[in-house]
Amino acid sequence: MFKPVNVAILGATGAVGTELLELLESRNFPLNNLKLLASSRSAGTHLKFKGESIKVEAVDEKAFDDVDLVLASAGGSTSKAWAQTIVDSGAVMVDNSSAFRMNPDVPLIVPEINPEAAANHQGIIANPNCTTILMAVAIYPLHQVQPIERIVVSTYQSASGAGARAMEEVKIQSQAILKGEDPKAEILPYPLAFNLFPHNSPLTETGYCEEEMKMVNETRKIFNTPHLKITATCVRVPVLRAHSEAINLEFKAPFSVAQAREIIAQSPGVQLLEDWQKNYFPMPIDASGKDDVLVGRIRQDISDPNGLELWICGDQIRKGAALNAVQIAELLMEKSLLNIAKSSLKV
Amino acid sequence: MFKPVNVAILGATGAVGTELLELLESRNFPLNNLKLLASSRSAGTHLKFKGESIKVEAVDEKAFDDVDLVLASAGGSTSKAWAQTIVDSGAVMVDNSSAFRMNPDVPLIVPEINPEAAANHQGIIANPNCTTILMAVAIYPLHQVQPIERIVVSTYQSASGAGARAMEEVKIQSQAILKGEDPKAEILPYPLAFNLFPHNSPLTETGYCEEEMKMVNETRKIFNTPHLKITATCVRVPVLRAHSEAINLEFKAPFSVAQAREIIAQSPGVQLLEDWQKNYFPMPIDASGKDDVLVGRIRQDISDPNGLELWICGDQIRKGAALNAVQIAELLMEKSLLNIAKSSLKV
Repeated sequence: MFKPVNVAILGATGAVGTELLELLESRNFPLNNLKLLASSRSAGTHLKFKGESIKVEAVDEKAFDDVDLVLASAGGSTSKAWAQTIVDSGAVMVDNSSAFRMNPDVPLIVPEINPEAAANHQGIIANPNCTTILMAVAIYPLHQVQPIERIVVSTYQSASGAGARAMEEVKIQSQAILKGEDPKAEILPYPLAFNLFPHNSPLTETGYCEEEMKMVNETRKIFNTPHLKITATCVRVPVLRAHSEAINLEFKAPFSVAQAREIIAQSPGVQLLEDWQKNYFPMPIDASGKDDVLVGRIRQDISDPNGLELWICGDQIRKGAALNAVQIAELLMEKSLLNIAKSSLKV
Repeated sequence: MFKPVNVAILGATGAVGTELLELLESRNFPLNNLKLLASSRSAGTHLKFKGESIKVEAVDEKAFDDVDLVLASAGGSTSKAWAQTIVDSGAVMVDNSSAFRMNPDVPLIVPEINPEAAANHQGIIANPNCTTILMAVAIYPLHQVQPIERIVVSTYQSASGAGARAMEEVKIQSQAILKGEDPKAEILPYPLAFNLFPHNSPLTETGYCEEEMKMVNETRKIFNTPHLKITATCVRVPVLRAHSEAINLEFKAPFSVAQAREIIAQSPGVQLLEDWQKNYFPMPIDASGKDDVLVGRIRQDISDPNGLELWICGDQIRKGAALNAVQIAELLMEKSLLNIAKSSLKV
C-alpha cells in the first residue's frame, strides 16, 4: 500500500523500544529496512524481529544517513543530543521524550485527536506524555460534542511508568516485605511495594510536579485550547503495568451520562467497559497489553449539574507511548508526510 | 480525674476491636470494668489488656446490664441487632458501623470538629466512615477560616479497610503473582495485588458507591453544611494499611497556601508533612500506626483562583475508626454525658 521505508528505533533495548518492535511487527508496518540503535552500553545485543535477529548498533553521526523515520524512545537527553543530526539528515523523528513537546515548531499528536497537526511538521513530531495521552484520547470525543471547561484529575500510575527496572524493584520490595524484611528503594525514591507516593518527577515553581504540568500543558496543546482549566495530582501506586485516572470533567452545559456512554462506545482508541450489576469497571490488569484505553464508571457529578466523572485505565507503554508513536508514523505514511524537503528546523 | 466506668467492646476480636483495646490501655482510659463481647463464634478466646488476660464473652440480652459505655465495632447488622438493648439498658453506645450515622436522632462526631453535637445524644453516637473522618479532620480547620464551596476527592484506600482478611489476601495474592501463579480473590471481588479497582461497596442509584456517598453525606452532617457540594471517587489500592486522598477544595474566595499551611500546622488531629526540597510528602507507611492525619503538598489550584489541592494520608483503623471512637468516649466523660436519664430512643 505504501512505499516501504527505512526505520530506525533509537533506544531499541528499553521498555518502549521493545514494544515499538512488537508493534511494527504485529501491525505489519511497511518496512524496507529496520535499524536498531542504542547507547554504546547496549550496542551489540541482538533483538528478534519477524523471526530474524537484528544487532543493536551504537548511535553515531552517520547512523541516520539512510533513514526515513526515527522512532526515538531513549529519553530526553538522547533525543536532544541527536535531534539536529536526524533532522539535518532528512529523516523525520517521532520523539517519545518530553524534549520538544512544548516547542511551537513541533506538533504534539494523538492521531485520534489532532492528526491535521502533522501537516506542519518540520522534521520532529512529539509523542505526548503517557498519562496525558490516556486522558486525552478518553475525553476528547466528549469535548468535541460539548466543550470541556475544567478538568480535575487524580492518577494512579504503575511502576512501569518509571521503567522496567522500577517494575523489577517493586517485585523485589514486595518479596522483602512478605518475608518481614525492610524494602530497599534504589530506582524509585521511596519504597513503592504496599505503599504509594506523589509522583517523583521534579517539582516546578507552581508546586505541581513535572508530570502534572505535562498533563496541563500538553493537553492544552493537543486540544488547541490554550486556556483550558486543568489541575492534576499524579501518584505512583504499586501496580506493575497500566495507569488509571479518576477524571472530573466540567462542561459548559449538562452532558447526559447516556450520551457520554454512547459517544465513548463509538469513538476510536477507547473502549467502554462497565458492568454496573457486577460493580465491574476498568482495572490495570484489564488494560495491560491492550491498545484501547478502557473507560467506565461514567457518572453524573452530583456536585455539579454540568459535570461528569470518568474512570479510565490504559497501558501507558502501549497507547501511552509505543502505539501512539507507531500510529503517528502510520499517519505520516498515509499523508505522504515522510519525504519532506530538507528542514531548516534548529533545535 | 473521672469516675471510672464500665466499658464493653462489642466486636472485640476484629481489627478495630483490637485497636480499641490498645487505645484504652495506652490512653489510660478511666475504666472500672472492661467487658469484651463478640459473636458466639469468637467467644471463649482471650485477649490481653494491661497484662491481664480477658475472656471474650458471647453477646446476649443481659450483656449490657452493668455497662456504662459500649464501643461497638462488629458491623452494621450487629449494631442494629443490639442497639435497642444497649439503649434500654441505660448504656451509651459509640457505634463504629454505618447503621445509625444518618439517623437525625444520632450525633455523628469527629471530636476535633463538632464535639458540641454530643450534648444531644439519646444513647447512641455514631463514629463516621474512615475515609470521611480522615478528610474531615484535615479540611475542617480551613473551612472554619474560609467556607468550602465544593470538594472533589479521589481516594487510595488500603486493603485493611476491608478487614484483616483482605489484608492477608493481598499478601497471598502477591506471593502467587511473584511466583508466576494466578492470584485468587475470595474476600475482595477482584485481585488487588499489583492491581487496583473502584471501591467494591454496593452502587447506589446515583452511580456512586456507598463509600463515596458516605463521604458526601457524612461530611455534610459533621460540618452541618447540608448543601456542601462534594463529589468522590473511591478506589482500593494494594496498600496494606492507611488510606490516602487527593483533595481538591474550592473556597468562596482565594485561600493562600502559606495561610493554609500555618493553619494545618496548628490544628488538632493533623500534622503538616512536607519537604519540597526532597519531594517528600505523606505516604501510607508514614501514616500507619499514627494518631494524626498527615497533610502535605498544599498547592494553589492552577485551574481555580479560589482552589487548593491537598494530599493526605491517615491510618483508617486508628483515627479513621478506633481512635475517633475512644476520643468520643473521652468527650462523653469530660462533658459528663455518659450517665443520662433512661433514653426513649427507638431504633
